[in-house]
Amino acid sequence: MAPHVHRTPVFTSAFVDGRTGARVVFKAENLQKVGAFKFRGACNAVFSLGDDEARRGVLTHSSGNHAQAVALAARVRGVPAWVVMPEGAPAVKVAAVEGYGARIVRCAPTLAAREATAAEVQRETGAAFVHPYDDARVVAGQATAAMELLEQAGPLDVLLAPVGGGGLLGGTALAAAYFAPGTRVVGAEPAAADDAARSFHGGVLVPADNPRTVADGLRTSLGALNFAVLRRYVADVVTVGEDEIVAAMRHVWERMKLVIEPSSAVPVAALLSGRLDVEGRRVGVILSGGNVDLDHLPWFR
Amino acid sequence: MAPHVHRTPVFTSAFVDGRTGARVVFKAENLQKVGAFKFRGACNAVFSLGDDEARRGVLTHSSGNHAQAVALAARVRGVPAWVVMPEGAPAVKVAAVEGYGARIVRCAPTLAAREATAAEVQRETGAAFVHPYDDARVVAGQATAAMELLEQAGPLDVLLAPVGGGGLLGGTALAAAYFAPGTRVVGAEPAAADDAARSFHGGVLVPADNPRTVADGLRTSLGALNFAVLRRYVADVVTVGEDEIVAAMRHVWERMKLVIEPSSAVPVAALLSGRLDVEGRRVGVILSGGNVDLDHLPWFR
Repeated sequence: MAPHVHRTPVFTSAFVDGRTGARVVFKAENLQKVGAFKFRGACNAVFSLGDDEARRGVLTHSSGNHAQAVALAARVRGVPAWVVMPEGAPAVKVAAVEGYGARIVRCAPTLAAREATAAEVQRETGAAFVHPYDDARVVAGQATAAMELLEQAGPLDVLLAPVGGGGLLGGTALAAAYFAPGTRVVGAEPAAADDAARSFHGGVLVPADNPRTVADGLRTSLGALNFAVLRRYVADVVTVGEDEIVAAMRHVWERMKLVIEPSSAVPVAALLSGRLDVEGRRVGVILSGGNVDLDHLPWFR
Repeated sequence: MAPHVHRTPVFTSAFVDGRTGARVVFKAENLQKVGAFKFRGACNAVFSLGDDEARRGVLTHSSGNHAQAVALAARVRGVPAWVVMPEGAPAVKVAAVEGYGARIVRCAPTLAAREATAAEVQRETGAAFVHPYDDARVVAGQATAAMELLEQAGPLDVLLAPVGGGGLLGGTALAAAYFAPGTRVVGAEPAAADDAARSFHGGVLVPADNPRTVADGLRTSLGALNFAVLRRYVADVVTVGEDEIVAAMRHVWERMKLVIEPSSAVPVAALLSGRLDVEGRRVGVILSGGNVDLDHLPWFR
């Protein structure tokens, strides 16, 4: 996948360093292709397929960044892609996936319908299914963001990533364990969607229960594979409030001039909250993506 | 000034290249200190002063990015700064200038009052006046953005910058003439504030007449010094409409994930308008700044 993904730049912020007393380096995955780290995992999964398997194409069900990521990765490899999307998915997202050349298969807006439709497409086409997060190839792809950050920033004491399904946090923790053992990897999650924090601290995987958070990328339930990775390789999972997320997002837009989506602001909010012990430390933060509807910004709600 | 300014990164955009047929490199001065190229000129002016002169401090009148730029440059050099600001200037801007340690001197909100108050402060303090754009030291400072862009991007066929008072465009043209002769330097201006275009094409300096444009950084009149530079070193000055500016700003936010202010979008709008002959060319664009009021975005007007 290395020739196909952007080696995204890193940024620092005198404002954030001043507020936290830490030296913070931000990995700008909002500048990744399709506007999010999701392209790394999709690309690794698609390029992990054998030639015969790849020729039959790839398949996913998603209405978010992962759908665009799989569509683009398939186009780069030159194989067909099918994306199952629910009726009622935003027209702009459908158009973006179609723009990358994927075939859209519509279904009723329920998880059962999505899974049944995907299974049907798979039977008909033999396409390989690429799960958005609970897939080792996807997790390995997401891990490359932290790997690059460690190369670009040097040793880090603390490394923060948001957690939804856990693909990014799991990959981040594995990259740190492999390339920089001793780095404390911490997940950040909205308190309003705290299934990963409850699972991590309780020791039992609990699913998200229709959470309502501005961080739309983090509403999914933690995956079983990633739960196992988190238990072994992640030091802590902390939660932040909705107002903290929106304020952190604004800070990054205003001070760092980077467009990030609310999910990306969750680890920034954790950092700015003062609840992490980062004084004098070197801290890495993965800004996961920048796909925002500019007509519906959260500070106008 | 070199140790004190950010060598800002450059960015490309597959979207812009696809739309224009050109290979475009953007210089991200929105990531400069104080969020705009203005810090370069202010820094060069402040660091050009002899030690005795500098000790008496520096002075300007401005309510925009230049005020913050002078305040920070003075703080970096360790000398006092006075900034004359009109009553009614936005509290957030006053606070930002004070935050950099400058002393604010309030005056009535007229140009005459600003100039009289500045003259009074200068008599009392002996501080050196730093004009926002019509000053050779300031223009030389702004020139370093284009100089760096040429180092980072290699040879360019066309180089675009916005034009208000002309400090950035003049500096850009001088840098190209010196470091990359043969580069066609083009200024971009709002049609609603087209004094530079009229002056350039008419051969006579005409002042702006209270222009109304979303590009608030470009409402000033072209300076006499810069007019002379433009006539000799600039190939063309083109104008764009208000809707084009807002659409270009949105494109940069959405596709490039960079927060830019409307003034920065003016050359992008010129590029996307199709009115420039850039097919197959290498084009540089200076994104001048990123200081935006996130509560008042132009697409909500």
